[in-house]
Amino acid sequence: MSLDRLIKKIDEKGNPSVVGLDVDFGKLPGFLQNEAIMRYDETLRAAARAVLMFNKALIDALCDIIPAVKLQCAYYELLGHEGMKTFAETITYAKKKGLFVICDGKRNDIGSTMEAYAAAHLGSVTVGTKTLKPFGADALTVNGYLGTDGIVPLLDICNKYDKGIFVLVKTSNPSSGELQDMNIEGTTVFGIMGVMCEKWGERTKFKHGYSAVGAVVGATYPEQLSKLREELPGTFFLVPGYGAQGGSAEDVAGAFRKGKGAIINSSREIIYAYQNEDGSEKDYAAAARRAAIRMKNKLHRVIS
Amino acid sequence: MSLDRLIKKIDEKGNPSVVGLDVDFGKLPGFLQNEAIMRYDETLRAAARAVLMFNKALIDALCDIIPAVKLQCAYYELLGHEGMKTFAETITYAKKKGLFVICDGKRNDIGSTMEAYAAAHLGSVTVGTKTLKPFGADALTVNGYLGTDGIVPLLDICNKYDKGIFVLVKTSNPSSGELQDMNIEGTTVFGIMGVMCEKWGERTKFKHGYSAVGAVVGATYPEQLSKLREELPGTFFLVPGYGAQGGSAEDVAGAFRKGKGAIINSSREIIYAYQNEDGSEKDYAAAARRAAIRMKNKLHRVIS
Repeated sequence: MSLDRLIKKIDEKGNPSVVGLDVDFGKLPGFLQNEAIMRYDETLRAAARAVLMFNKALIDALCDIIPAVKLQCAYYELLGHEGMKTFAETITYAKKKGLFVICDGKRNDIGSTMEAYAAAHLGSVTVGTKTLKPFGADALTVNGYLGTDGIVPLLDICNKYDKGIFVLVKTSNPSSGELQDMNIEGTTVFGIMGVMCEKWGERTKFKHGYSAVGAVVGATYPEQLSKLREELPGTFFLVPGYGAQGGSAEDVAGAFRKGKGAIINSSREIIYAYQNEDGSEKDYAAAARRAAIRMKNKLHRVIS
Repeated sequence: MSLDRLIKKIDEKGNPSVVGLDVDFGKLPGFLQNEAIMRYDETLRAAARAVLMFNKALIDALCDIIPAVKLQCAYYELLGHEGMKTFAETITYAKKKGLFVICDGKRNDIGSTMEAYAAAHLGSVTVGTKTLKPFGADALTVNGYLGTDGIVPLLDICNKYDKGIFVLVKTSNPSSGELQDMNIEGTTVFGIMGVMCEKWGERTKFKHGYSAVGAVVGATYPEQLSKLREELPGTFFLVPGYGAQGGSAEDVAGAFRKGKGAIINSSREIIYAYQNEDGSEKDYAAAARRAAIRMKNKLHRVIS
């Protein structure tokens, strides 16, 4: 159930890493940009179609070695509704290729509105007699600032549709501590949020030791990461901040307990790997594959 | 500049209220649902087109009496990329009718990703030689859990494109206090967030006493609302929770200082007003207008 599906895929591939498809049209190989503009003019549609081609090629090159992809909503919203079409089509394609798909939307709102977000990204909506799935991801990242009633609609969807969520606990960015590290009665804001994840998780169905409520904990704060791993035994971790943001394999070692309990995200270092190699930019998917294998090997050294 | 444009429209209309277009296909008048399904089958497109028709009729009926509309992203994402097309077209239409448009997305992420969200909702993106505006709202709601570097890209966009943001401070939902009310060295989590709004606002350009960084403070917590109004003199308030969520005109009185400084949102009570009247559902836009006028009059009594 829920994140059990992700955990199973991690075990099958022997690889606790997820590739972030945070794709920016301006950073695509030039020939992909040019081809799309030739075909669709200088439009959002051109950019969105180019991103879709790039994503599909990356998924083809990576799907036998990684268990999951994470799509950062912001980069798809950046291309308007055409971008959201690419977002939906990328999710469909990744699932067809056997990948677990995390929508990184960091959504948050009051209960009635969260029902709509939960249905949009993980569930379904009814039109007439039909039940339709708007985006169909397997898991969604969320922000818990609004407390339990902003989370409950997601737990219902997790149980009903066998999905998961990841709640922001300690984020990877430089100023994450401004609020998150503040002291509350002997613990911290992020500590409180972690305890909430454990509590929310108890309301979900799961088999393999980790509930459907995961936590986002950044690779860039290895001490807090290790401490949270001890404090939150039933919470699976999604760890951003590896690679381009500065986190190393050693930094994320503490996210694991007996080699389990976390998945490490890398985005730019994998998807734009072609920029750091001498070969042709046409070789971008193979370059991403080589980078993903390097990451897998580095992770293996620290967690085994 | 920035929220100055909103404040000017509020003064012109003599009405500090904003109508929330949180439109759910299943709650539309039946004839609108049926017409769309007849034309486009039982599809997300049918639902999205019906919502657009409803929004346009509401905007036509309301644009001379209200200064602004607020679009809740969740309800548009619920209809997939077709929903996001309706989202974009509603924004364009509302702006053409002279309304200030707030995108209620509660977005949040690390700096590099917030650049993408800021560009998507308030700014522009470059494709080839063209500069394109994906959604083009006037202001965006955001969640400050990640601290300053998740907010800075928005401040840059506010200054460059004359836009505003509203940061979640004290939300209107029942469990908002779980984290937000917690005690941090004599103040609260929401108090800290409020102080951050004042600090971030100082980096923006503005004329009329309120910076481009507003705060979201719920009508359902009138004491905290009044106290925050005193503590945050340079921060304009967006106040949700009026109407269907239980907040009254008396509850929001404390959001104002000499009749200024806030805009009150009502969504369901206005847009679905037709459900509470005896007339035909075809009269939905006129019913919304009557409800909006009642709200305006109630607010006038408490703030004058």
